Amino acid sequence: MKNVIYIFGMGMIGGSLALSLKKNKLAKKIFAYDKNKKSLISAKQKKLIDAYDFSNFSHLQQADLIIVCTPIGAYRQIFKIIKKYMSKDCIITDVGSTKTSIVTEAEKIFGNKQKCFIGSHPLAGKEKSGVSNAESNLFLNTTVIITPTSKTNKNLLSKIKNFWKKIDCKVEILSPLLHDVIMSETSHVPHLISYSLVNSIFRNKNIKNIHNFTGGGFKDFARIAKSNPIMWRDICQHNKKNIAASLGLFINDLKSLRKQVQQNDFQKLYNLFKKTRQKLS
Amino acid sequence: MKNVIYIFGMGMIGGSLALSLKKNKLAKKIFAYDKNKKSLISAKQKKLIDAYDFSNFSHLQQADLIIVCTPIGAYRQIFKIIKKYMSKDCIITDVGSTKTSIVTEAEKIFGNKQKCFIGSHPLAGKEKSGVSNAESNLFLNTTVIITPTSKTNKNLLSKIKNFWKKIDCKVEILSPLLHDVIMSETSHVPHLISYSLVNSIFRNKNIKNIHNFTGGGFKDFARIAKSNPIMWRDICQHNKKNIAASLGLFINDLKSLRKQVQQNDFQKLYNLFKKTRQKLS
Repeated sequence: MKNVIYIFGMGMIGGSLALSLKKNKLAKKIFAYDKNKKSLISAKQKKLIDAYDFSNFSHLQQADLIIVCTPIGAYRQIFKIIKKYMSKDCIITDVGSTKTSIVTEAEKIFGNKQKCFIGSHPLAGKEKSGVSNAESNLFLNTTVIITPTSKTNKNLLSKIKNFWKKIDCKVEILSPLLHDVIMSETSHVPHLISYSLVNSIFRNKNIKNIHNFTGGGFKDFARIAKSNPIMWRDICQHNKKNIAASLGLFINDLKSLRKQVQQNDFQKLYNLFKKTRQKLS
Repeated sequence: MKNVIYIFGMGMIGGSLALSLKKNKLAKKIFAYDKNKKSLISAKQKKLIDAYDFSNFSHLQQADLIIVCTPIGAYRQIFKIIKKYMSKDCIITDVGSTKTSIVTEAEKIFGNKQKCFIGSHPLAGKEKSGVSNAESNLFLNTTVIITPTSKTNKNLLSKIKNFWKKIDCKVEILSPLLHDVIMSETSHVPHLISYSLVNSIFRNKNIKNIHNFTGGGFKDFARIAKSNPIMWRDICQHNKKNIAASLGLFINDLKSLRKQVQQNDFQKLYNLFKKTRQKLS
């Protein structure tokens, strides 16, 4: 490897990745593309990247590792561009929050070149988007889930594993399907709930100035509900079956909870609270 | 005022209040009661309090301000004790998360002495309970909601207002009823949701080691779901009507959300995410 890294999408995640690679001196060169030229100019000025592509893809052929850091909705088009320009030995991964549809798309587009792509998902993120919010230590001790399939080349898996380990991530291996099932419950539905809950509070006419009453748990929900809307729209679209199923189960849980409140079954509520707290300790 | 303050309940909140009063030199003496003697001994050793009551209430008569900091379920018994021992000019407040039932109970018990009680609710808290987790700056810049009724003595309101302002709280005034309606949505239901969501994740057999997958929003929910189960059982009991109503509305919101996911109405989801984020900024 010449260690030339190309990042598609110079937002908060792409920028943090570049910062982390620069800080740890893990790339000979870092190139980037973004549909927003201002992000590229800013990243170049701050020395996160060495150069960028905007109206053409002149740097793409030099890359031996490409990392896709855009909303998932843009992947198909990006994969097609990559296929057109990539060098023979280049390998590709991403940071997207869903995996099954992405891996399927990659297999379709890269065809017999599918040895080059493996999905990754670093469980890192924050509510502030944009390259100006990039952080060099965003990936420190973060779990990265890598999602090989039965067809995945072992050498490719090992290379991508090492890449994430070098920037101090902990690596977990899951199938794309299982990844999407788990993330639906631990991340996707919690985000939908946060958006919905914060929205319902804003809708309540009794609450005149919400910022006066932001104690008691509200802040945590509000933080999550500031996440990037395009990113979350795409996640809902690409993991819709799991998300709909998880939401269905959760609606049933809330119905039981409501029944317990209405029927004065406070002992049952106490048991739930106690059990949950114990499991977290 | 002699500035002798008596705290019922030497847990995380009672302890933080004592620390804050000591730090700002706002009390001549601080006394406390708790049903757990270890908490009292620890608070005395750490000089949070000057002395404590355990098997009797020998210090209670000296107090000119009593603050109840126990779970709400213990209030009735504590109000009866206070009525028995309190001095003539003593005033009383609390820190409980519900207000309507408490204020009603206080009016019943203190009878023609009801000029002595006014409800307070500092929107401060954290997931760790017990006096060992007390913090001197827990109340710094915290909103305290004071809930007078039409019968409340103006002098009492002004004294309690000043008390909270002295420990750097911002004061808001709401009726007990409106307080409970608002808190149901901004705090009580979010806590129930957190407990329920974390519990549903533990229940999922696909998720073997939850601590490997705790990115993407899970941590925020988990933090809230570590809250004191007795305290939350009592809150559910004392604000049951509002909580059941808020849960009902929220279940309907989640049903619409689920329908949008199932029917590929991602534009509507995007609009919700965007609108919520904009309102928070």
